[in-house]
Amino acid sequence: MLIVRILSAAAILILFAYGASAQTVPSENAWASEWGPDDERGAANRITPQKVLEATRLIKEGRIYELGRVYEAGMPLFPGRYYSLTIPGSPTGGPFGKNNLVYHDEIVSGQIGQVGTQFDGLGHIGTRINGEDIFYNGFKRSEFGTAVGLDRLGVENVGVFVTRGVLIDMAGYKGVDRLPVGTVITATDLQNALEQQSIELSEGDVVLIHTGHGLLWMVDNDEYNRGAPGIGVEAALWLAEKRVAMTGADTWPVEVIPSEDPELAFPVHQELIARRGIYNLENLNLSELAADKVYEFAFMFAPVKFKGATGSPGNPIAIR
Amino acid sequence: MLIVRILSAAAILILFAYGASAQTVPSENAWASEWGPDDERGAANRITPQKVLEATRLIKEGRIYELGRVYEAGMPLFPGRYYSLTIPGSPTGGPFGKNNLVYHDEIVSGQIGQVGTQFDGLGHIGTRINGEDIFYNGFKRSEFGTAVGLDRLGVENVGVFVTRGVLIDMAGYKGVDRLPVGTVITATDLQNALEQQSIELSEGDVVLIHTGHGLLWMVDNDEYNRGAPGIGVEAALWLAEKRVAMTGADTWPVEVIPSEDPELAFPVHQELIARRGIYNLENLNLSELAADKVYEFAFMFAPVKFKGATGSPGNPIAIR
Amino acid sequence: MLIVRILSAAAILILFAYGASAQTVPSENAWASEWGPDDERGAANRITPQKVLEATRLIKEGRIYELGRVYEAGMPLFPGRYYSLTIPGSPTGGPFGKNNLVYHDEIVSGQIGQVGTQFDGLGHIGTRINGEDIFYNGFKRSEFGTAVGLDRLGVENVGVFVTRGVLIDMAGYKGVDRLPVGTVITATDLQNALEQQSIELSEGDVVLIHTGHGLLWMVDNDEYNRGAPGIGVEAALWLAEKRVAMTGADTWPVEVIPSEDPELAFPVHQELIARRGIYNLENLNLSELAADKVYEFAFMFAPVKFKGATGSPGNPIAIR
Amino acid sequence: MLIVRILSAAAILILFAYGASAQTVPSENAWASEWGPDDERGAANRITPQKVLEATRLIKEGRIYELGRVYEAGMPLFPGRYYSLTIPGSPTGGPFGKNNLVYHDEIVSGQIGQVGTQFDGLGHIGTRINGEDIFYNGFKRSEFGTAVGLDRLGVENVGVFVTRGVLIDMAGYKGVDRLPVGTVITATDLQNALEQQSIELSEGDVVLIHTGHGLLWMVDNDEYNRGAPGIGVEAALWLAEKRVAMTGADTWPVEVIPSEDPELAFPVHQELIARRGIYNLENLNLSELAADKVYEFAFMFAPVKFKGATGSPGNPIAIR
Repeated sequence: MLIVRILSAAAILILFAYGASAQTVPSENAWASEWGPDDERGAANRITPQKVLEATRLIKEGRIYELGRVYEAGMPLFPGRYYSLTIPGSPTGGPFGKNNLVYHDEIVSGQIGQVGTQFDGLGHIGTRINGEDIFYNGFKRSEFGTAVGLDRLGVENVGVFVTRGVLIDMAGYKGVDRLPVGTVITATDLQNALEQQSIELSEGDVVLIHTGHGLLWMVDNDEYNRGAPGIGVEAALWLAEKRVAMTGADTWPVEVIPSEDPELAFPVHQELIARRGIYNLENLNLSELAADKVYEFAFMFAPVKFKGATGSPGNPIAIR
Repeated sequence: MLIVRILSAAAILILFAYGASAQTVPSENAWASEWGPDDERGAANRITPQKVLEATRLIKEGRIYELGRVYEAGMPLFPGRYYSLTIPGSPTGGPFGKNNLVYHDEIVSGQIGQVGTQFDGLGHIGTRINGEDIFYNGFKRSEFGTAVGLDRLGVENVGVFVTRGVLIDMAGYKGVDRLPVGTVITATDLQNALEQQSIELSEGDVVLIHTGHGLLWMVDNDEYNRGAPGIGVEAALWLAEKRVAMTGADTWPVEVIPSEDPELAFPVHQELIARRGIYNLENLNLSELAADKVYEFAFMFAPVKFKGATGSPGNPIAIR
Repeated sequence: MLIVRILSAAAILILFAYGASAQTVPSENAWASEWGPDDERGAANRITPQKVLEATRLIKEGRIYELGRVYEAGMPLFPGRYYSLTIPGSPTGGPFGKNNLVYHDEIVSGQIGQVGTQFDGLGHIGTRINGEDIFYNGFKRSEFGTAVGLDRLGVENVGVFVTRGVLIDMAGYKGVDRLPVGTVITATDLQNALEQQSIELSEGDVVLIHTGHGLLWMVDNDEYNRGAPGIGVEAALWLAEKRVAMTGADTWPVEVIPSEDPELAFPVHQELIARRGIYNLENLNLSELAADKVYEFAFMFAPVKFKGATGSPGNPIAIR
Repeated sequence: MLIVRILSAAAILILFAYGASAQTVPSENAWASEWGPDDERGAANRITPQKVLEATRLIKEGRIYELGRVYEAGMPLFPGRYYSLTIPGSPTGGPFGKNNLVYHDEIVSGQIGQVGTQFDGLGHIGTRINGEDIFYNGFKRSEFGTAVGLDRLGVENVGVFVTRGVLIDMAGYKGVDRLPVGTVITATDLQNALEQQSIELSEGDVVLIHTGHGLLWMVDNDEYNRGAPGIGVEAALWLAEKRVAMTGADTWPVEVIPSEDPELAFPVHQELIARRGIYNLENLNLSELAADKVYEFAFMFAPVKFKGATGSPGNPIAIR
């Protein structure tokens, strides 16, 4: 049909995927991994030693950018989550010994892998199909979910991201400080911005999208939480085609919220994490990278190996 | 005196410090930082862009070694600490939307910065002097300690370690799989092992000591916790002289426990962290590095920016 | 059949229930409540105003016995559970105002309804039947279980126990300080002990069984946790016939562990809580009641109304 | 002076206490307990067996009023506190055994003794005097405060409240549904309302004040938290003169907030808890008692024996 022929490949994918998923969800066998039936690492497999070396070669100045937010009381949180840090006693212990040593430690409590700067692992997002919850690579919740952690897809399996990072400065491309909540970033937007930045994506990249939404962090948390500018499904699938390892942004969902189709819940999470094993990194601070026009860099993030966890806190970094 | 003249500079330092501290603790003004009265970063200041580049140049193969332990129920813990991870519900939420999305998150609770692989920040260790607790750079607990985090020396100030890492394989040097609990590692031991490895230390290095004690992890937790082989004060001061940024080991205290002087509590912690701002990284897995004889590498660790925390979990890595 | 005719009613019940449950579990419709299809209170319905008055009349001296254990680090815990209490800061806040007020609060964390002295609510125990988990009154987990609490059978529905309490001093009856782990208490044992104590049970009673096992609390936690003397299924069903509101003991399970039939998991919990709505109160201190031969008393316990919780901590009391 | 002679004894006390405390805080020796230098129970000592019997005699109908709030997400909380309850897994464990038993438990976390319906113990409130924090009976924080609980004045020492309860319906007396935030309840108000109710206070009573503020609970949490109607210092001292065991209200502080003297922080807490060992019970639901005009009743509350805790959750009850 004409209508198909003039659509981009990505859009066809969407028609395929969403013509389907708008009415039903993908069947069970739509979740298979390209890395084999036992794979629990997903797109982290794209980070080969060669990719590490490619990233390393981008380090020219030795300057580090910290992309992680400070975890603190009062930071924006997804509804129902909490974060608490307290210092027991003061000091926590001591003085001990002739040397009068004292020490502090801390009690931390909360959805630690899913508050603040957070990394979404492959056990985070699944899909209910015929009464079973299917996760990445077809793993079934009934077979790996336990009260004390996931027996499959736990974040301890991911490994480490030392790879090429690419910043796509969408706010800069659009000439604004901050894209409004609900702004849909399309594949064309990404392509145009990349072209303007003279950057091309390659397999195994971590793609970070600067929207300016992060300016609201701890400044206007209500607006920050109300939604976000972000990629829609079409842009997500375009990134997936580029075989990236992870997407990230200075927003809490990376994808656009409200979703383009209001009847779908976090469809980009589902398409990238659950179907394709592509990770997601949320609540980043990308202001400095954007201000310095650092579009290509060595990216490093090592998820904390909480056994059976769905995500991880951390302080991802860019080095140029 | 003759006895002084034939001692190394390091040993003199010890006499000075410990002649003093064995009877009294250092006076308040002994804690000043070489980086100025406001410094909260300590030896992390030694990691300059040049040092980052030095580390980067060590990456030849792009191979990553994960040095962090898995955090899990049943891991060895310092007395009185706990670690809990649970998955609320199963799934935690959903199905949502026409796309039947479900999700998991986790509740993590415990002394998260001071369990498992752990990084000791500068707010962790202090000294009671005349009723006041003095921490790194003379900061007084009464002025920065609060119930909900430290107003000074919190781990969010540290920044990131991308630097040269050096493994000193003491077990290998001694020709054993595992040094017994209580083995004191001396400055001479370190020097000899380094010489055998043909490695020299330089300013800003992270020095990781492989003792083999890590073989007990999750295998014989009682023995693991009973004590540890490790550096004594004299070796610690020698490392401090080398102006390292951080020490680490495959043990829970890095320093030898029981201490050489049984009347002192964690004297190496006090000398390195509190007096000199040199960090400490505990409960590492160094087996693979040692097996592969990787003695020099790019080291990377970015503490989680828990505001006001004394430490951080994480997965430090070595890249060669 | 003859064999049926000479059995007691209770034994017939057992044959019925356990002839069945030894091979299969009861069918879904075996779980209906006698208090109607919407009931979430179970045997707490037996505590009528008349029963409260009956209990009140037992108060002759105004002497209170505290039956609750102190919750503390080091207390015996069911495997996998934890309990943590810390005091943030010291003080937690202040000084405030001209009056220099300071305050402390605490962070408590753990399976708070299921550690230490604990009350088992009706959402605690269920049975997997044909892939669905059936709880008291046929409520299905898939319909009431959520990540943040149970929508049905939460402990906030129970109300309050102000009722007649009866102590059955089994250790005293057997002439020992402590019944060994694994001792099965039979219906005949209960009957004989009650007869010796000149006590009869009546509907709505709370029946507390003194086994002496509590002597091990914080004295020999390993032995305490290894198992317990307690009622078997036959005794449980006899108590259920007496229409009691709750059973309790100075042990962690109240029922005998190991179970008589090693292939059954906590069958008394299932028979009393899940099938009959009869509550269970564990880890009591019954030493004083037994020592003073207080066999009949006003019993009071008001579960903490944690919404959607499966249990409650507390300090149940006896007043004579 | 004339001005003194015409003042009531209570007012003189106030002049004494507050003439003083407005400029300085009471000296260390002003905190001695009338129950001796080792006392850790305070006004709970007033609940004698005779008092228990007096309470018992008030039970005529056997009707129980639950005064405790449901603890739930979204309830009003003092700034900085949190409450979390989650159900790990679903179910948490099982199926086990041939009987396919499954179970749920819960993870509860937060300032459990100081959220929702809460009982303020004697370790909760102290006063900074010359650098030391003095609590009830002169106990010094430096001597009893530890990171893992208070060595003195912990809630496990309190015992149990089974005593006469008195409701003072101030909203009813004033002819309103709800007294506005900031309404000061005076000793005269209390006296007049009691007279209208034909009730007199006696030693060891628990006095609950119905202000109607509880109507805001979970309806308008912001207004609920903004302040409260409540007793001022003068009324508090009048109640102390009556030798009550505990005060309580359908508000979060019981005392009026903002305080009459804006430069004082929670002066009623200080006068009652810290100086006189009189307990405080907050966030009660008193609507039903007031609606039914139940002014005198048996009151029962048994704090959970969290070792070293400053407070306790619970479900206090009234029985008539």
